[in-house]
Amino acid sequence: MAEFCDLNADLGESFGAWTMGDDAALLKVVSSCNIACGFHAGDPLTMQHTVATALASGVAVGAHPSLPDLVGFGRRELRVDAAELYALTLYQISALDGFVRAAGGRLHHVKAHGALYGMLARELALARAFVDAVVAAGPDLQIYGPDQGALRRVCVDSSRRYVCEGFADRGYQANGQLVPRSQPGALLELDAARAQGLALARAQAIAAVDGTQIRPAVQTLCVHGDGPHALALASQLRADLLAAGLGIRAP
Amino acid sequence: MAEFCDLNADLGESFGAWTMGDDAALLKVVSSCNIACGFHAGDPLTMQHTVATALASGVAVGAHPSLPDLVGFGRRELRVDAAELYALTLYQISALDGFVRAAGGRLHHVKAHGALYGMLARELALARAFVDAVVAAGPDLQIYGPDQGALRRVCVDSSRRYVCEGFADRGYQANGQLVPRSQPGALLELDAARAQGLALARAQAIAAVDGTQIRPAVQTLCVHGDGPHALALASQLRADLLAAGLGIRAP
Amino acid sequence: MAEFCDLNADLGESFGAWTMGDDAALLKVVSSCNIACGFHAGDPLTMQHTVATALASGVAVGAHPSLPDLVGFGRRELRVDAAELYALTLYQISALDGFVRAAGGRLHHVKAHGALYGMLARELALARAFVDAVVAAGPDLQIYGPDQGALRRVCVDSSRRYVCEGFADRGYQANGQLVPRSQPGALLELDAARAQGLALARAQAIAAVDGTQIRPAVQTLCVHGDGPHALALASQLRADLLAAGLGIRAP
Amino acid sequence: MAEFCDLNADLGESFGAWTMGDDAALLKVVSSCNIACGFHAGDPLTMQHTVATALASGVAVGAHPSLPDLVGFGRRELRVDAAELYALTLYQISALDGFVRAAGGRLHHVKAHGALYGMLARELALARAFVDAVVAAGPDLQIYGPDQGALRRVCVDSSRRYVCEGFADRGYQANGQLVPRSQPGALLELDAARAQGLALARAQAIAAVDGTQIRPAVQTLCVHGDGPHALALASQLRADLLAAGLGIRAP
Repeated sequence: MAEFCDLNADLGESFGAWTMGDDAALLKVVSSCNIACGFHAGDPLTMQHTVATALASGVAVGAHPSLPDLVGFGRRELRVDAAELYALTLYQISALDGFVRAAGGRLHHVKAHGALYGMLARELALARAFVDAVVAAGPDLQIYGPDQGALRRVCVDSSRRYVCEGFADRGYQANGQLVPRSQPGALLELDAARAQGLALARAQAIAAVDGTQIRPAVQTLCVHGDGPHALALASQLRADLLAAGLGIRAP
Repeated sequence: MAEFCDLNADLGESFGAWTMGDDAALLKVVSSCNIACGFHAGDPLTMQHTVATALASGVAVGAHPSLPDLVGFGRRELRVDAAELYALTLYQISALDGFVRAAGGRLHHVKAHGALYGMLARELALARAFVDAVVAAGPDLQIYGPDQGALRRVCVDSSRRYVCEGFADRGYQANGQLVPRSQPGALLELDAARAQGLALARAQAIAAVDGTQIRPAVQTLCVHGDGPHALALASQLRADLLAAGLGIRAP
Repeated sequence: MAEFCDLNADLGESFGAWTMGDDAALLKVVSSCNIACGFHAGDPLTMQHTVATALASGVAVGAHPSLPDLVGFGRRELRVDAAELYALTLYQISALDGFVRAAGGRLHHVKAHGALYGMLARELALARAFVDAVVAAGPDLQIYGPDQGALRRVCVDSSRRYVCEGFADRGYQANGQLVPRSQPGALLELDAARAQGLALARAQAIAAVDGTQIRPAVQTLCVHGDGPHALALASQLRADLLAAGLGIRAP
Repeated sequence: MAEFCDLNADLGESFGAWTMGDDAALLKVVSSCNIACGFHAGDPLTMQHTVATALASGVAVGAHPSLPDLVGFGRRELRVDAAELYALTLYQISALDGFVRAAGGRLHHVKAHGALYGMLARELALARAFVDAVVAAGPDLQIYGPDQGALRRVCVDSSRRYVCEGFADRGYQANGQLVPRSQPGALLELDAARAQGLALARAQAIAAVDGTQIRPAVQTLCVHGDGPHALALASQLRADLLAAGLGIRAP
């Protein structure tokens, strides 16, 4: 059984005069964070402040690169090719890393944002380009992603450290993939989410949407801060993990 | 008398499907280059390719950060404050540096682009923020800029290496500043430009537009590639410098 | 004494996933609104929805064009020239007008946003280009702006209808200009703002920051929705005007 | 047999300091043009100038809306939904129409650009949203597009005028679709292109890549200006059509 689990959240998703999320509250809950790099959110000043605040909170800082789509918040698929993806990923990680170094910190990991997250799970050529960009940005950078799919395969095949991400409040299918948001069972209620998050963190089996017992590999749980419900879940999950004797720390 | 002079050019100013300049021709002439970082020109793929080509040519690579104004090509003043300028400068330098490191190179210098170049000469608070961002990006990075004004003062006051830039084809005023483009004498003909460029490189006096003899400090001459005239001047200037026994190399 | 006054507010300033302001609450207060056109805020979908909601509320719809500066929310001066300003103003008004026509409405007025608002008061060439663009977009469009400066002069000189805008919660100088936000007296408390707003609407004298009695021309009062204070002021001002026997309607 | 054919070209695809294409040369060849609206190319000043030049040349002006992707020149698929597509299409057409009206002209048609062109042929919901936006922008606007697929079907089903576009220099498959650019036979040589263009304009059969005789419906032929080859084809095609007794004019 696992002795530790990471809690991660997406931070720094404000842009100019627009604010999003409750970064201050989340920084009290998580052990690692993924900071937007300017392509779906996060102007340079926001990046600088978010990096500084995260480091001051002792939270591990990761880059959160995205497809270039500000108005779509990086949630819409854009058909970039592998060469484009390599370049825009390296660009974003390097830009964020500049703020981390300037603040005396060290970049810890990279997690793809939004539509790109799903594309990397499905498309091998893109997954390879993404991993190449991460390695170019820093050979020790860890990669967060789903416990299934192309991105994990590329990392495993090249013996790179890969951190499997799980979701407390999302339903799973029997094949280990998430239930699509458009289908019943996609979202779990607070209590079910707490139970599932704890089970995932302890490497115990959970029930898929059809009742099958599955055991997704999870080294980090993703939590959100939009809405009081999400923040309550994040805080309670943290308390549950500690109460169960698990440490909460970045991988 | 100087034994060496640098020739620098702005490169990587294409964007997506649009091309600009003759980078290949300029790379045969210059000893250092300033590469656009995405805010006035230079998408990530263009940056990657330009960095690779410049390093392969043995040309010193610098970052060429700009105000964020793609449609205006960074030529229009935008009233950023010091905090914004610090963040957007560090963002751009770091992004470019990512490509330089990935290619096994080392970032050499930073030169501001367009309207920002002039603002840094006039405004002390902006000059300080810019220098702070450069230092944060890399303590050994050299700064290119005009031989007069706030940016040089900030560097001199903090004992930072500063590389004074001169212009072969621009007329000078008696006070050492360039003749504004809207006034007579702003641009020199080819032969006059060759003569002025050689004199500046040798640290000899030149005639200001009113006939006064002045002696601007120059460690690098800026050359351009837009149009056959500019490229011809750049090539001939290079030949003139070598014929006069000066070495051409990055500072 | 005036029998009517207009209350106007800036609406539609969300962008993609980011929301701003309480448009629904403001639409219950104002008689005209200025809708962002995509250059400082307001993506196409937001524009469409805001136009539809405003028309359904019986509020007169105006365009709120801006300098192109999304990350700076149009609040930073950008040195566009007259030709650029003409084109970007006509572009924005026409784009918004498309949504107004499609919804069966009629565009009522144009009010410049942010830094552009101030530039038009100071620079005659820009004010002329702006007015030319408004006329090109629609000969009957009214122009809102400060009761002093270049924009009003251009309108008066060309016999165009001009709607003077006043501010309930901002201090005035003896010369009729607003007290800069950086100086004491720039912002008025709720009660003082209510009193000043009512006086302005009734064309009565108000006290400038130095005690001088001044009488700015005001046909529309600008109200805001950011923060409970601003919304409270807007609602109370509306009640005050009605209680004083003034009608609230678009000019 | 047809007595007339339209020749159309994409114009106004410069952006800020970057130029693209030889609009002046193409305007001597074509009878209608499609002008970029700012989302893949074409800043407001470029739009204004292109509209003015096209109208002065007696060429029918169309809008050329695109997915929002400047760096990708609108050539990459972006998964917008129908509501987003409606809004961004109406936004772009209306913005261009503003320049056409201001110049005393009348917008003639709309043709989708790049990746959007293909998406509209394949996806019914997007085709419906696009047609709705065109109708909202102007009930008399004609729509250009491929002679097969969803967009044509939507227009036919709603009894809207639809202008089928053919390509002189692209190979066709037996099913009437173009040979993908990645496959042999995708591009025709100059002489073959001239012959195919003439046949398409005369409503005669052409040979598909496998030899099958097909007869695509064509009311407009698309010509390009990038490269001397393309411009030569455009000019010669124009001469061929006139020599064959066909009139060249906008539908």
